[in-house]
Amino acid sequence: MGRGRVAVGTVAVASALGLFSRLQTAIPTVRTFSVSQPLHKGASPEWNLGRLNHVAIAVPDLEKAMAFYKNVLGAQVSDVVPVPEHGVSVVFVNLGNTKMELLHPLGNNSPVAGFLQKNKVGGMHHVCIEVDDINAAMKDLKKKKIRILSEEVKIGAHGKPVIFLHPKDCDGVLVEMEQA
Amino acid sequence: MGRGRVAVGTVAVASALGLFSRLQTAIPTVRTFSVSQPLHKGASPEWNLGRLNHVAIAVPDLEKAMAFYKNVLGAQVSDVVPVPEHGVSVVFVNLGNTKMELLHPLGNNSPVAGFLQKNKVGGMHHVCIEVDDINAAMKDLKKKKIRILSEEVKIGAHGKPVIFLHPKDCDGVLVEMEQA
Repeated sequence: MGRGRVAVGTVAVASALGLFSRLQTAIPTVRTFSVSQPLHKGASPEWNLGRLNHVAIAVPDLEKAMAFYKNVLGAQVSDVVPVPEHGVSVVFVNLGNTKMELLHPLGNNSPVAGFLQKNKVGGMHHVCIEVDDINAAMKDLKKKKIRILSEEVKIGAHGKPVIFLHPKDCDGVLVEMEQA
Repeated sequence: MGRGRVAVGTVAVASALGLFSRLQTAIPTVRTFSVSQPLHKGASPEWNLGRLNHVAIAVPDLEKAMAFYKNVLGAQVSDVVPVPEHGVSVVFVNLGNTKMELLHPLGNNSPVAGFLQKNKVGGMHHVCIEVDDINAAMKDLKKKKIRILSEEVKIGAHGKPVIFLHPKDCDGVLVEMEQA
Protein backbone atom coordinates (compact mmCIF):
# COMPACT_ATOMS: atom_id res chain seq x y z
CA MET A 1 0.00 0.00 0.00
CA GLY A 2 2.79 2.34 -0.96
CA ARG A 3 4.80 1.88 2.19
CA GLY A 4 8.38 2.90 1.68
CA ARG A 5 9.40 2.43 5.23
CA VAL A 6 8.01 -0.42 7.21
CA ALA A 7 6.79 0.43 10.65
CA VAL A 8 7.93 -2.13 13.15
CA GLY A 9 6.79 -0.81 16.51
CA THR A 10 3.91 -2.49 18.23
CA VAL A 11 0.84 -0.56 18.98
CA ALA A 12 -0.95 -1.26 22.16
CA VAL A 13 -0.88 -0.45 25.78
CA ALA A 14 1.46 -1.87 28.34
CA SER A 15 -0.64 -4.39 30.17
CA ALA A 16 0.31 -2.71 33.41
CA LEU A 17 -1.88 0.21 32.42
CA GLY A 18 -4.74 -2.22 32.34
CA LEU A 19 -7.15 0.19 30.72
CA PHE A 20 -8.50 -2.03 28.04
CA SER A 21 -8.46 -4.97 30.39
CA ARG A 22 -10.85 -3.06 32.57
CA LEU A 23 -13.03 -2.30 29.59
CA GLN A 24 -13.05 -5.96 28.73
CA THR A 25 -13.63 -7.12 32.26
CA ALA A 26 -16.80 -5.11 32.39
CA ILE A 27 -18.29 -7.25 29.64
CA PRO A 28 -18.64 -10.96 30.36
CA THR A 29 -17.54 -12.83 27.27
CA VAL A 30 -17.07 -16.45 26.39
CA ARG A 31 -13.92 -16.76 24.33
CA THR A 32 -14.93 -18.51 21.12
CA PHE A 33 -11.47 -19.76 20.40
CA SER A 34 -8.08 -19.65 21.94
CA VAL A 35 -4.72 -20.95 20.90
CA SER A 36 -4.93 -23.52 23.66
CA GLN A 37 -7.78 -25.11 21.68
CA PRO A 38 -6.46 -24.57 18.19
CA LEU A 39 -9.01 -24.18 15.45
CA HIS A 40 -6.34 -24.58 12.83
CA LYS A 41 -4.62 -27.86 12.21
CA GLY A 42 -1.53 -25.80 11.59
CA ALA A 43 1.06 -25.82 8.87
CA SER A 44 3.61 -26.88 11.46
CA PRO A 45 3.28 -29.24 14.41
CA GLU A 46 5.31 -26.75 16.45
CA TRP A 47 2.91 -23.81 16.68
CA ASN A 48 -0.69 -22.80 16.06
CA LEU A 49 -2.28 -19.69 14.67
CA GLY A 50 -4.97 -18.10 16.83
CA ARG A 51 -7.55 -15.33 16.67
CA LEU A 52 -7.34 -11.84 15.24
CA ASN A 53 -6.10 -9.75 18.14
CA HIS A 54 -6.59 -6.34 16.50
CA VAL A 55 -6.62 -4.23 13.37
CA ALA A 56 -4.44 -1.15 13.74
CA ILE A 57 -5.41 2.15 12.10
CA ALA A 58 -2.95 5.04 11.88
CA VAL A 59 -4.78 8.35 12.35
CA PRO A 60 -3.60 11.94 11.89
CA ASP A 61 -5.94 13.32 14.57
CA LEU A 62 -6.53 11.01 17.51
CA GLU A 63 -9.25 13.06 19.19
CA LYS A 64 -11.18 13.30 15.93
CA ALA A 65 -10.84 9.58 15.24
CA MET A 66 -11.90 8.81 18.79
CA ALA A 67 -14.97 11.01 18.39
CA PHE A 68 -15.82 9.24 15.13
CA TYR A 69 -15.80 5.78 16.68
CA LYS A 70 -17.49 6.89 19.90
CA ASN A 71 -19.99 9.55 18.91
CA VAL A 72 -20.67 8.73 15.28
CA LEU A 73 -20.48 4.92 15.30
CA GLY A 74 -21.35 4.45 18.95
CA ALA A 75 -18.45 2.11 19.70
CA GLN A 76 -16.95 1.61 23.13
CA VAL A 77 -13.58 3.38 23.11
CA SER A 78 -10.84 3.74 25.71
CA ASP A 79 -9.16 6.95 26.76
CA VAL A 80 -5.96 7.95 24.97
CA VAL A 81 -3.12 5.78 26.24
CA PRO A 82 0.41 7.08 25.67
CA VAL A 83 2.91 4.31 25.02
CA PRO A 84 6.13 6.33 24.70
CA GLU A 85 8.40 3.29 24.56
CA HIS A 86 6.67 2.32 21.31
CA GLY A 87 6.32 5.85 19.96
CA VAL A 88 2.53 5.87 19.82
CA SER A 89 -0.56 7.09 21.56
CA VAL A 90 -3.30 4.49 21.33
CA VAL A 91 -7.07 4.39 21.60
CA PHE A 92 -8.75 0.99 21.79
CA VAL A 93 -12.06 0.46 20.04
CA ASN A 94 -13.82 -2.58 21.43
CA LEU A 95 -15.90 -4.43 18.83
CA GLY A 96 -16.79 -7.37 21.05
CA ASN A 97 -15.11 -10.15 19.09
CA THR A 98 -11.90 -8.20 18.48
CA LYS A 99 -10.68 -4.62 18.60
CA MET A 100 -9.38 -1.81 16.50
CA GLU A 101 -6.42 0.20 17.73
CA LEU A 102 -6.15 3.83 16.69
CA LEU A 103 -2.50 4.87 16.54
CA HIS A 104 -1.01 8.34 16.54
CA PRO A 105 2.70 9.23 16.60
CA LEU A 106 4.22 10.08 19.97
CA GLY A 107 7.73 11.53 20.20
CA ASN A 108 10.47 11.20 17.62
CA ASN A 109 10.98 8.14 15.46
CA SER A 110 7.43 6.95 15.81
CA PRO A 111 6.76 3.82 13.76
CA VAL A 112 3.59 5.40 12.37
CA ALA A 113 5.00 8.83 11.43
CA GLY A 114 6.31 7.68 8.05
CA PHE A 115 3.05 5.94 7.27
CA LEU A 116 1.07 9.11 7.97
CA GLN A 117 3.48 11.11 5.79
CA LYS A 118 2.45 8.86 2.90
CA ASN A 119 -1.18 8.52 3.94
CA LYS A 120 -2.21 11.97 5.13
CA VAL A 121 -5.78 11.05 6.04
CA GLY A 122 -4.70 7.86 7.83
CA GLY A 123 -5.31 4.25 6.93
CA MET A 124 -5.09 0.60 7.91
CA HIS A 125 -1.61 0.01 9.31
CA HIS A 126 -1.39 -3.65 10.31
CA VAL A 127 -3.25 -6.70 11.56
CA CYS A 128 -2.22 -8.67 14.64
CA ILE A 129 -2.89 -12.41 14.85
CA GLU A 130 -2.23 -14.46 17.96
CA VAL A 131 0.00 -17.54 18.06
CA ASP A 132 0.63 -20.02 20.85
CA ASP A 133 4.43 -20.15 20.54
CA ILE A 134 6.13 -17.13 19.03
CA ASN A 135 9.62 -18.66 19.00
CA ALA A 136 8.45 -21.77 17.18
CA ALA A 137 6.47 -19.61 14.75
CA MET A 138 9.49 -17.42 14.03
CA LYS A 139 11.75 -20.39 13.42
CA ASP A 140 9.22 -22.07 11.14
CA LEU A 141 8.44 -18.87 9.18
CA LYS A 142 12.14 -18.19 8.61
CA LYS A 143 12.51 -21.73 7.29
CA LYS A 144 9.62 -20.98 4.91
CA LYS A 145 11.48 -17.86 3.65
CA ILE A 146 9.13 -15.33 5.22
CA ARG A 147 11.12 -12.26 6.20
CA ILE A 148 10.80 -11.17 9.83
CA LEU A 149 11.37 -7.48 10.57
CA SER A 150 13.62 -8.09 13.56
CA GLU A 151 16.37 -10.53 14.32
CA GLU A 152 14.72 -11.61 17.52
CA VAL A 153 11.33 -11.77 19.15
CA LYS A 154 10.58 -8.46 20.88
CA ILE A 155 8.29 -7.48 23.70
CA GLY A 156 5.40 -5.59 22.14
CA ALA A 157 3.37 -2.79 23.62
CA HIS A 158 0.86 -5.26 25.11
CA GLY A 159 3.83 -6.55 27.14
CA LYS A 160 3.77 -9.81 25.15
CA PRO A 161 6.32 -11.29 22.72
CA VAL A 162 5.74 -10.22 19.12
CA ILE A 163 7.24 -10.38 15.66
CA PHE A 164 6.32 -8.53 12.47
CA LEU A 165 6.31 -10.22 9.07
CA HIS A 166 7.47 -8.35 5.98
CA PRO A 167 4.45 -6.97 4.05
CA LYS A 168 5.96 -8.04 0.75
CA ASP A 169 5.76 -11.65 1.92
CA CYS A 170 2.15 -11.20 3.11
CA ASP A 171 0.31 -9.69 0.12
CA GLY A 172 1.13 -6.13 1.10
CA VAL A 173 -0.15 -6.54 4.65
CA LEU A 174 2.02 -5.82 7.67
CA VAL A 175 1.27 -8.83 9.89
CA GLU A 176 2.08 -8.76 13.59
CA MET A 177 2.11 -12.04 15.47
CA GLU A 178 1.66 -11.91 19.21
CA GLN A 179 2.07 -14.74 21.65
CA ALA A 180 -1.30 -15.04 23.35
CA MET B 1 -3.95 4.83 1.71
CA GLY B 2 -3.46 6.48 -1.62
CA ARG B 3 -6.78 5.38 -3.04
CA GLY B 4 -7.80 7.54 -5.94
CA ARG B 5 -10.86 5.56 -6.81
CA VAL B 6 -12.97 4.16 -4.06
CA ALA B 7 -13.98 0.56 -4.44
CA VAL B 8 -17.59 0.08 -3.58
CA GLY B 9 -18.38 -3.51 -4.41
CA THR B 10 -18.83 -5.90 -1.57
CA VAL B 11 -16.53 -8.76 -1.22
CA ALA B 12 -17.95 -11.93 0.09
CA VAL B 13 -19.78 -14.96 -1.06
CA ALA B 14 -23.47 -15.21 -1.74
CA SER B 15 -24.83 -16.99 1.27
CA ALA B 16 -26.47 -19.48 -1.07
CA LEU B 17 -23.06 -20.89 -1.83
CA GLY B 18 -22.79 -21.70 1.81
CA LEU B 19 -19.14 -22.61 1.66
CA PHE B 20 -17.92 -20.62 4.57
CA SER B 21 -21.04 -21.45 6.49
CA ARG B 22 -20.09 -25.09 6.21
CA LEU B 23 -16.59 -24.29 7.41
CA GLN B 24 -18.05 -22.46 10.35
CA THR B 25 -20.62 -25.10 11.11
CA ALA B 26 -17.86 -27.60 11.58
CA ILE B 27 -16.54 -25.61 14.50
CA PRO B 28 -18.87 -25.15 17.44
CA THR B 29 -18.61 -21.57 18.57
CA VAL B 30 -20.29 -19.50 21.19
CA ARG B 31 -20.95 -16.09 19.77
CA THR B 32 -19.37 -13.65 22.19
CA PHE B 33 -21.47 -10.76 21.11
CA SER B 34 -24.23 -10.07 18.69
CA VAL B 35 -26.12 -6.99 17.72
CA SER B 36 -29.16 -8.38 19.47
CA GLN B 37 -27.24 -7.95 22.72
CA PRO B 38 -25.48 -4.71 21.98
CA LEU B 39 -22.14 -4.15 23.65
CA HIS B 40 -22.16 -0.54 22.63
CA LYS B 41 -24.54 1.95 24.14
CA GLY B 42 -24.65 3.52 20.72
CA ALA B 43 -24.40 7.05 19.51
CA SER B 44 -27.99 6.83 18.37
CA PRO B 45 -30.99 5.12 19.97
CA GLU B 46 -31.99 3.92 16.49
CA TRP B 47 -29.19 1.46 15.71
CA ASN B 48 -26.29 -0.42 17.31
CA LEU B 49 -22.82 -1.22 16.12
CA GLY B 50 -21.83 -4.89 16.26
CA ARG B 51 -18.78 -7.09 15.81
CA LEU B 52 -16.04 -6.99 13.20
CA ASN B 53 -17.37 -9.19 10.42
CA HIS B 54 -14.17 -9.30 8.35
CA VAL B 55 -11.01 -7.58 7.20
CA ALA B 56 -10.70 -7.63 3.41
CA ILE B 57 -7.31 -7.97 1.73
CA ALA B 58 -6.88 -7.36 -2.01
CA VAL B 59 -4.34 -9.79 -3.45
CA PRO B 60 -2.68 -9.92 -6.90
CA ASP B 61 -2.33 -13.73 -6.84
CA LEU B 62 -5.15 -15.58 -5.11
CA GLU B 63 -3.58 -19.05 -5.21
CA LYS B 64 -0.36 -17.69 -3.74
CA ALA B 65 -2.20 -15.79 -1.00
CA MET B 66 -4.28 -18.86 -0.23
CA ALA B 67 -1.15 -20.96 0.06
CA PHE B 68 0.38 -18.38 2.40
CA TYR B 69 -2.54 -18.45 4.83
CA LYS B 70 -3.03 -22.20 4.59
CA ASN B 71 0.45 -23.69 4.26
CA VAL B 72 2.63 -21.03 5.83
CA LEU B 73 0.39 -19.73 8.62
CA GLY B 74 -1.69 -22.87 9.03
CA ALA B 75 -5.03 -21.08 8.88
CA GLN B 76 -8.29 -22.70 7.85
CA VAL B 77 -9.12 -21.36 4.38
CA SER B 78 -12.03 -21.94 2.01
CA ASP B 79 -11.81 -22.81 -1.64
CA VAL B 80 -11.85 -20.00 -4.17
CA VAL B 81 -15.40 -18.68 -4.48
CA PRO B 82 -16.24 -16.71 -7.62
CA VAL B 83 -18.73 -13.92 -6.97
CA PRO B 84 -19.15 -12.52 -10.50
CA GLU B 85 -21.99 -10.17 -9.58
CA HIS B 86 -19.55 -8.35 -7.29
CA GLY B 87 -16.53 -8.63 -9.57
CA VAL B 88 -14.38 -10.65 -7.20
CA SER B 89 -13.11 -14.09 -6.43
CA VAL B 90 -12.95 -14.61 -2.68
CA VAL B 91 -11.12 -16.89 -0.28
CA PHE B 92 -12.23 -16.90 3.35
CA VAL B 93 -9.63 -17.23 6.08
CA ASN B 94 -11.25 -18.30 9.34
CA LEU B 95 -9.52 -16.87 12.40
CA GLY B 96 -12.08 -18.14 14.91
CA ASN B 97 -13.30 -14.82 16.26
CA THR B 98 -13.57 -13.19 12.83
CA LYS B 99 -12.31 -13.73 9.30
CA MET B 100 -10.12 -12.29 6.64
CA GLU B 101 -11.38 -12.22 3.07
CA LEU B 102 -8.85 -12.44 0.26
CA LEU B 103 -10.15 -10.61 -2.82
CA HIS B 104 -9.03 -10.88 -6.39
CA PRO B 105 -10.57 -9.13 -9.41
CA LEU B 106 -13.04 -11.14 -11.48
CA GLY B 107 -14.29 -9.82 -14.83
CA ASN B 108 -14.32 -6.21 -15.94
CA ASN B 109 -14.97 -3.29 -13.61
CA SER B 110 -13.93 -5.18 -10.52
CA PRO B 111 -14.01 -2.98 -7.43
CA VAL B 112 -10.53 -4.20 -6.45
CA ALA B 113 -8.79 -3.79 -9.83
CA GLY B 114 -8.00 -0.10 -9.31
CA PHE B 115 -6.74 -0.76 -5.82
CA LEU B 116 -4.33 -3.42 -7.10
CA GLN B 117 -3.13 -1.05 -9.84
CA LYS B 118 -2.03 1.30 -7.09
CA ASN B 119 -0.91 -1.40 -4.68
CA LYS B 120 0.84 -3.99 -6.82
CA VAL B 121 1.68 -6.40 -4.02
CA GLY B 122 -1.81 -6.14 -2.51
CA GLY B 123 -2.94 -4.64 0.77
CA MET B 124 -5.71 -4.08 3.29
CA HIS B 125 -8.79 -3.01 1.36
CA HIS B 126 -11.60 -2.49 3.89
CA VAL B 127 -13.08 -3.52 7.21
CA CYS B 128 -16.66 -4.67 7.66
CA ILE B 129 -18.52 -4.02 10.90
CA GLU B 130 -21.98 -5.38 11.63
CA VAL B 131 -24.98 -3.24 12.56
CA ASP B 132 -28.46 -4.23 13.68
CA ASP B 133 -30.39 -1.82 11.44
CA ILE B 134 -28.68 -0.67 8.26
CA ASN B 135 -31.40 1.78 7.25
CA ALA B 136 -31.37 3.50 10.62
CA ALA B 137 -27.56 3.55 10.55
CA MET B 138 -27.51 5.11 7.08
CA LYS B 139 -30.02 7.79 8.02
CA ASP B 140 -28.14 8.65 11.21
CA LEU B 141 -24.72 8.69 9.53
CA LYS B 142 -25.96 10.98 6.77
CA LYS B 143 -27.32 13.33 9.43
CA LYS B 144 -23.86 13.29 11.00
CA LYS B 145 -22.34 14.32 7.64
CA ILE B 146 -20.63 10.99 6.94
CA ARG B 147 -20.60 10.37 3.19
CA ILE B 148 -22.09 7.07 2.06
CA LEU B 149 -20.80 5.65 -1.24
CA SER B 150 -24.24 4.81 -2.59
CA GLU B 151 -27.58 6.55 -2.57
CA GLU B 152 -29.27 3.51 -1.14
CA VAL B 153 -28.56 0.42 0.88
CA LYS B 154 -27.38 -2.39 -1.42
CA ILE B 155 -27.36 -6.14 -1.11
CA GLY B 156 -23.76 -7.17 -0.53
CA ALA B 157 -22.07 -10.35 -1.61
CA HIS B 158 -23.01 -12.07 1.66
CA GLY B 159 -26.59 -11.56 0.51
CA LYS B 160 -27.15 -9.03 3.29
CA PRO B 161 -27.82 -5.28 3.16
CA VAL B 162 -24.65 -3.17 3.20
CA ILE B 163 -23.38 0.36 2.87
CA PHE B 164 -19.83 1.69 2.48
CA LEU B 165 -18.64 4.84 4.27
CA HIS B 166 -16.30 7.24 2.53
CA PRO B 167 -12.69 6.59 3.63
CA LYS B 168 -12.01 10.33 3.97
CA ASP B 169 -14.67 10.46 6.69
CA CYS B 170 -13.20 7.39 8.44
CA ASP B 171 -9.49 8.17 8.85
CA GLY B 172 -8.55 6.74 5.48
CA VAL B 173 -10.32 3.43 6.10
CA LEU B 174 -13.00 2.11 3.77
CA VAL B 175 -15.66 0.94 6.24
CA GLU B 176 -18.38 -1.44 5.16
CA MET B 177 -21.43 -1.83 7.39
CA GLU B 178 -23.45 -4.99 7.06
CA GLN B 179 -26.80 -5.71 8.63
CA ALA B 180 -26.19 -8.82 10.73
